[in-house]
Formats: sequence, structure tokens, C-alpha cells
Amino acid sequence: MANDKKVLTMDSLNPCVKIMEYAVRGPIVDRATALENELKNGASKPFTRVVKANIGDCHATGQKPITFIRQVLALVTYPELLMKNGDFPEDAKNRAKKILDACKGGSVGSYSESPGLLAIREDIAAYIAKRDGHPSNASDIIMSTGASDGIKAIITLLLTGKDGSGKAGIMIPVPQYPLYSAVIAEFNAYPIRYYLNEENQWSLDVSELKHAISEARAHCVPRAIVVINPGNPTGQVLTRQNIEDVIRFAKEEGLFILADEVYQHNIYAKGSKFFSFKQVMKEMGEPYSSMELASFMSASKGFMGECGYRGGYAEVINLDPQVKLQYMKSISAKLCPPVSGQAVMDVIVNPPQPHEPSYKLFEKEKEFVLAQLREKAKLVTDLFNSIEGISCNEVQGAMYAFPCIKLPEKAIEAAKEVGQTPDAFYCFALLEETGICTVPGSGFGEKEGTYHFRITILPPQEELREVLGHFKEFHLRFLSRYS
Amino acid sequence: MANDKKVLTMDSLNPCVKIMEYAVRGPIVDRATALENELKNGASKPFTRVVKANIGDCHATGQKPITFIRQVLALVTYPELLMKNGDFPEDAKNRAKKILDACKGGSVGSYSESPGLLAIREDIAAYIAKRDGHPSNASDIIMSTGASDGIKAIITLLLTGKDGSGKAGIMIPVPQYPLYSAVIAEFNAYPIRYYLNEENQWSLDVSELKHAISEARAHCVPRAIVVINPGNPTGQVLTRQNIEDVIRFAKEEGLFILADEVYQHNIYAKGSKFFSFKQVMKEMGEPYSSMELASFMSASKGFMGECGYRGGYAEVINLDPQVKLQYMKSISAKLCPPVSGQAVMDVIVNPPQPHEPSYKLFEKEKEFVLAQLREKAKLVTDLFNSIEGISCNEVQGAMYAFPCIKLPEKAIEAAKEVGQTPDAFYCFALLEETGICTVPGSGFGEKEGTYHFRITILPPQEELREVLGHFKEFHLRFLSRYS
Repeated sequence: MANDKKVLTMDSLNPCVKIMEYAVRGPIVDRATALENELKNGASKPFTRVVKANIGDCHATGQKPITFIRQVLALVTYPELLMKNGDFPEDAKNRAKKILDACKGGSVGSYSESPGLLAIREDIAAYIAKRDGHPSNASDIIMSTGASDGIKAIITLLLTGKDGSGKAGIMIPVPQYPLYSAVIAEFNAYPIRYYLNEENQWSLDVSELKHAISEARAHCVPRAIVVINPGNPTGQVLTRQNIEDVIRFAKEEGLFILADEVYQHNIYAKGSKFFSFKQVMKEMGEPYSSMELASFMSASKGFMGECGYRGGYAEVINLDPQVKLQYMKSISAKLCPPVSGQAVMDVIVNPPQPHEPSYKLFEKEKEFVLAQLREKAKLVTDLFNSIEGISCNEVQGAMYAFPCIKLPEKAIEAAKEVGQTPDAFYCFALLEETGICTVPGSGFGEKEGTYHFRITILPPQEELREVLGHFKEFHLRFLSRYS
Repeated sequence: MANDKKVLTMDSLNPCVKIMEYAVRGPIVDRATALENELKNGASKPFTRVVKANIGDCHATGQKPITFIRQVLALVTYPELLMKNGDFPEDAKNRAKKILDACKGGSVGSYSESPGLLAIREDIAAYIAKRDGHPSNASDIIMSTGASDGIKAIITLLLTGKDGSGKAGIMIPVPQYPLYSAVIAEFNAYPIRYYLNEENQWSLDVSELKHAISEARAHCVPRAIVVINPGNPTGQVLTRQNIEDVIRFAKEEGLFILADEVYQHNIYAKGSKFFSFKQVMKEMGEPYSSMELASFMSASKGFMGECGYRGGYAEVINLDPQVKLQYMKSISAKLCPPVSGQAVMDVIVNPPQPHEPSYKLFEKEKEFVLAQLREKAKLVTDLFNSIEGISCNEVQGAMYAFPCIKLPEKAIEAAKEVGQTPDAFYCFALLEETGICTVPGSGFGEKEGTYHFRITILPPQEELREVLGHFKEFHLRFLSRYS
């Protein structure tokens, strides 16, 4: 009865919230946390600790922060440290002074401009210009609280304010990082799902894109296409040709391109190279070079993995000038992204240069992380492909493997009985028996009748080897149990 | 023609974005920034610098950070500093260690749980329990990126997913901090505006609340009431009696209470005391004590003014347990609020204790800021009330004065001619002639035919005196020009 008096009940709750899902932090993670607590309280388990391979949380799995980033951050935080001789390298001090000069009142405790401190946006533009070989403008850089917040801000602009078949349609890959489906659900937009081609290294087939959009036209007004490159959860690095195809498709269909390029530093495979959508568009010439594009970047991935600082930005080009003003207005009520996250981003895009004292250490730390990731990407790919009933595309980039598992009919039935998807059933069993926490493929979307899971390649090499050993044993046990 | 090819034009842009406004960072601020640049480039103006009294940005106007906050922050940022003997007080080191222990991998660079680090939420709950004399539970504390982000998250839950008269109605004060109207516009909800009683120290009259909600029922489904206490932009501190009246009203009407209590440390007037909505509800007993309530707090205001760190939290009580789970799910896709902002909040709610080495300095710095604000609140109130044609309620709390100005008919006509509201016309003239940037009352809402502006009391005392002197001269000049 007490419940009847609540304003918010499951009946009155925003229905968009009810349908929204975000698998990366879903029920399996809750169970993993519960298991951790059981272990802490002395429960006996077939494993001694839980390995959270569900989320791309670099420092959580033991990666060390890049020294120069944290030195600059400490200095801007507590400028008294600038007075001490010898404790901090000169380039860290100079950078900190530059950032503090850009802050109102010389404090990172003041609000920045809503799109971020101009001095930092200039550094970002310089980084992009150098990366692509094409000019970039600080006025097109809009910083955000992680990339997610920037993505939401752009999708907000694209909504139609209409319901039913007038809804904004946003094309998203399947499988996809579930932020997109979550935001689309929350905003009552329409997800136009296109399947990545697993047989061809998770590439985007234009025929599939065309098929998906033509099916969707009855249900929505298509406005944009999301492409995640390097792929999450799929780990592919798109070829330049594939990017060109997508750009042509978007032009034909009148779509805004949302390029999620947060893993741009995470390229491992021989022959793979990162091309930004902007670079490819610019080099395709008109009419492609003046298409509207938002490219997203984050401080949370790459070699730095500074997730907790929530640094991110979007480069948004070719906007109608009046729309640009509305965009700036729309982000102003959020006041500004965290200034410490902005400072982290500044160091990422403008690292120490060869003549500066911190250069060597920075490069060494960066290369160490990336080299480890490169080895682990290969280790994981090879291991999964060595197991019967599992196939795994090469982890060319990003931080995840997304292997395909053939599940026995009996396992599929057993999953049905307990009301789980077959891959969730598999991942829960994996967690209970080995302590390895992964995310079921169904949380990202997958072709009907196929089953996957996402596992990060982040645990330290030795631990990862051990994890993969336990995984293999589990898999064989699971197969024999349900065969 | 090129414009025709854009996906996003003023015609296709989300209509909710178009109607959204956020006056605190509106056109007058753009003009102030332009003036600053003109001055920098040597332009001759009747003033030598622009005083941005438009926004509650404490450090921007010269307030110094609290040492202990920044020491703890520097230590968690760059834990190498923990090794140095003597550079940092022991209590700062201990606090930093406690926070790092709560972080995955011992790094503030890892993601926290979506509602924030448990250890910090426990400190927040302890702070609230001590403040109110009633228990508080860490599981009811949900940290956010500034208070704004937390407010948006709760309003999201309250939306109905319907259009027209099925829209969610959210009661907001007039005048109000325009975050609320901006979020309501963005989310296509319905603002139920109720007028604060300027004649009675900006109190909430229940008759006005009843009038507003009954008028609105034809247009929406009323779901919640927003109360800002201490008031922004109005500077009042609600009496306990007034809070009780509002709670009874909300109960009768079946409304969720959103209590914006970010200025809870900013109480200046003799006889004024801060009562939290939670405390009053709890002490009213059933059925009031089990009403749904969200109270918001920020690291950006109070005595610390750490706006740039974007720290904030909501205490959300008496939620239906299933709704609570949905709420937690709904914030999970944002991953987590900035961990450095969480750390700032930890120090605010759990400051050094009398036996600890940093206690004296912390208290001294805190009291200095608050004592200055107290004096400035009085200074501003007295000054405005000494000017003919201006009346100003006592600034009892928060950081703003919101004086009422009588404008001559000729000024009102002149404003019409240039397409401005009369108070925007006045504020622009003030800016051009004195360099003082304020926000026109129309940006917050005001009774028809009345004119106001919001000015912060943040500039340092001497500067504020000077500013107020220039203001007075301007006002008299303005009056004589249009009389």
C-alpha cells in the first residue's frame, strides 16, 4: 500500500528509462562485485579473485599513470609546488603555468568556457591538424565530460522532437558499444541497427547499410550514422576504402556522421593504420569534404587510460553557423567539463617534445603500454582461435576481443530455462567458475543465432595468460557438460 | 544553396534546443568577453576592466582555494608526493591514502562506481546525518558532475514519455536559476511557474503554489516541485515554517520534491538558519517523512567555490526500490562523475578535525571566505536600497542580489525599439558604460511589469565597493537620460 503513495513507481517512471540498457555495467558486473565481497568475507570459491575484464578501465587493472600527465596535474592543482626547485621537471612546470594562465583567476577551480579552455582547444586543434595533414580550428573543438557527454550533446541536436515515424533515426553498428543504444533509448530516438560483417573482419558493408536504412524509413527519419573505429567491442581497424564507402553512403542518404574515434591511439595489427573520418572526407574533396561530421575523442583510452578524469572532446565540422550557435547555447547550462580532465587532455594532445626534459620518460611509458597491448591483442586472438568452437577476428585495435562461441543445443535450452540469453548464461557460468567477468555479446547486439562475449585485453600479461588458461579449461568443461 | 545540403539546419534542429535558454551564459556575457578583448587590444572605454558579476564563479573573482582541499587533491593526483617527508601535513596524506584505497588500482584515473566511490558517499552520509540529526545512508547518495548533472538525472526519471497534456509538469520558482527551465525545455517537459513573493522576502506562498498547479493541470501531469534554498537568484533563506508549508503542499498534490540546497553553507543574515528539506520532513513525521525527496549539493559554492572540479551529489530518499534500481541503471551509461571532483567533495563534507594538524588553517580560510561574503551581502543590500528607484530584499544567503529597478517609461520604449527586454536594455547599458556584467532579471523570470538584475556578491570587498560606486553613478545617469 505504501507504494501506491509514491510519485515514482514502475508504472509512472519515464518509459524511456525502463527500456534503456547499458550492459557494460549490467547484472553480471553486480554479481562480480558480490563475489568479490563473498571472497573478502572468507567464502570458498574455485578462484581466489575476480578479474574484471568487462570494462576498459586501464588503471583498475594495474596500468600505471603516465608520469608527465600527473606531474602537470599536481602542479595545476596545488601551484605551491611550482615554487619548489628540482622536484618537478621544467616542462611540466611550464605546461602547468600555461594552463593556469588560461584559467580565470589562475585557478582550475574556476569554470572554463562551456566548450573548454581556449588554450587547450588550440592544442587539440594543432594535434588534429598534425595527425590528419589538414587544418583544424579551435572553434570547432568542444570539450566534454568524457566522450560520452559529447556524444549525447550531438545526438540531442539531431532529435526531431517528434514521435512515432517522425522520430530521429540514428544508425548504429551491431555489435556496438551500448552507450549509443542507451542514449537513443533515453532520448526516445530510433536505433537503425546495421550489422558489421564478422566474416570480413567486422567491416561495414554498404549493401547492409542500405538495407538497414531502407527498412527503417517507415519507422523514423534517418539523421545520422555512428561508426566506431577502431571498433568497440569488435576490435577492427577500418580500411581507408571502407571509410570512403561509408562517407559516400552518408552523403547519398543525407546523414550526419558521428565518428567514435576514442581508440585512435590503439592500433596493434601489422598493416592496420588509423585514418580519421575527417582526413578521408577532406581528401575525397567536394562534396564530401564539406559534410557535417563529429569526431569524438577521450582521455580514458589510448596509452593514458585516465578514465576517472572524464576528459573528452568532439571536433565538429561544417555545421551551419546558426546551428553552431544553438549547439553552443545547448551546452552552456552544463557550465563546463571538469577542468582537470581538460588539463589531462592537453598533455595527451601536446606531449613533451624531443628537446624537453620529460620527452624520454613520456615516450618510454607510452611505448611500454602500447607494446604490451599489442602483444596482448595477439595473445588473446591466438588463444581464442586455438579453442574448438571459438573463433575470433584479429584484435587489430581498441582494447577488446569479441570472440564468437558455438554453444551446444543443451546449453541454449538450459539458458532458456533460467530466462537468460545463451551467451549471458555462458558468461555467468564463466564468472562463477573462474572469477572472470566478461560481458555477454547480447549486451552489444549480435546476429540472431550467434553468441559472443567481450573481454578486455587490459590485465597485465602474466595475469592475462593465467586468465586465458582458466578460460580454456572452463570452456572445455562447459562444452562437455552440455554435450 | 550550400545550406540546403546540411543535415542540421535551423529547420531540422531539435526544436527543444531552439527554445532552451540559459541566461547566465547568454548574449550579455558574450558582449562582456568581446569588451575584454577590445580592452586588451587597446580600445578606449569608460572603464579599464570588465567585472564579471554574472556568474557564481568564486575563484575567477579572486577567491583563493582552501589549502587542505588542494593538498589532498595534489596527493591523490601524484602519489609520489606521499613519499616526501614534511611537505604535506599528515592529515592530508592520510586522507589521500584513504581516497586512493577506495579507487580501483589505487588510481584516481580508474572509473569509480557510477554513483561515486563508496568511501566518499559514506563521508557524505555522515555529514548529512550530523547536519540534520537524522540518519543518512550512503546508498542514497548519488554523486554527479556538478549538481546540474544530478538534477538532470532525476528530472529524466520524472518524464512521462508523453506529449501535449500528458507531459511531465515540473514546478519551478520565478525567478529561478535558469538551469531548470533549460532542462525542462530540452526534455520537452512543462514548466509550472510559481511566483516567489518579493514583498515577503521571496517566500513561497502556498496560495500561489495552488494557483499555479491548478492552472497547469490542463497542460501537463504535475510530477515535481523545485525549491531553491538558499535562493538563486533571490538570496532568501526559507524559514522552517515556509518549508513545512511547501512539504504539506507537495504531499497533497503528490509531488516529488527537488530541493536545490547547493548554497547550504552560504547563510549570512542574522536570524536566518539553514534547514534542509530532509530534516523538516523527518521532523514532521508520517506521512511526510516517507515522501520522495532529492536534495542537491555542489562543490562549486559554499566557502570552497571549486567550480572547475564539477563535484556534486544528490541525496535521494524514499524511492520505490524498483525505481531505485532503474535510477542506478540510468546513470550507468555515463560511467562515473569525475573522481577528482569526488575527492574535493570528500574534503568538504569531512573537513579536518580539531585534533588534526590542518584544522586551524582550514577553519581560518573557511571563516575568512564566509565572513567576507557576510559583509558583502550586507554592503550590497544596503547600497542598492540607498538608491532611488531600486529596492533590494536582504541577501540572507547564497551569492547574489536580485534588486528590483523602476525603469522610466522612456527607457522601456527605447528598449522596445531595439527589441530588448527593458532590463536587458538596462544591463547592456550598465555593461557598456561601466564594464559591470550582470544578468537581466528576464533571464530568471520575473513578474510582468517588474524589472530586475542579478549581481554576484563575489568580487573582493574593495573592488565591490568601487563597482557599486560606478553602479550608482550609472543608475542616476540612466534615469536622467530617460526621464
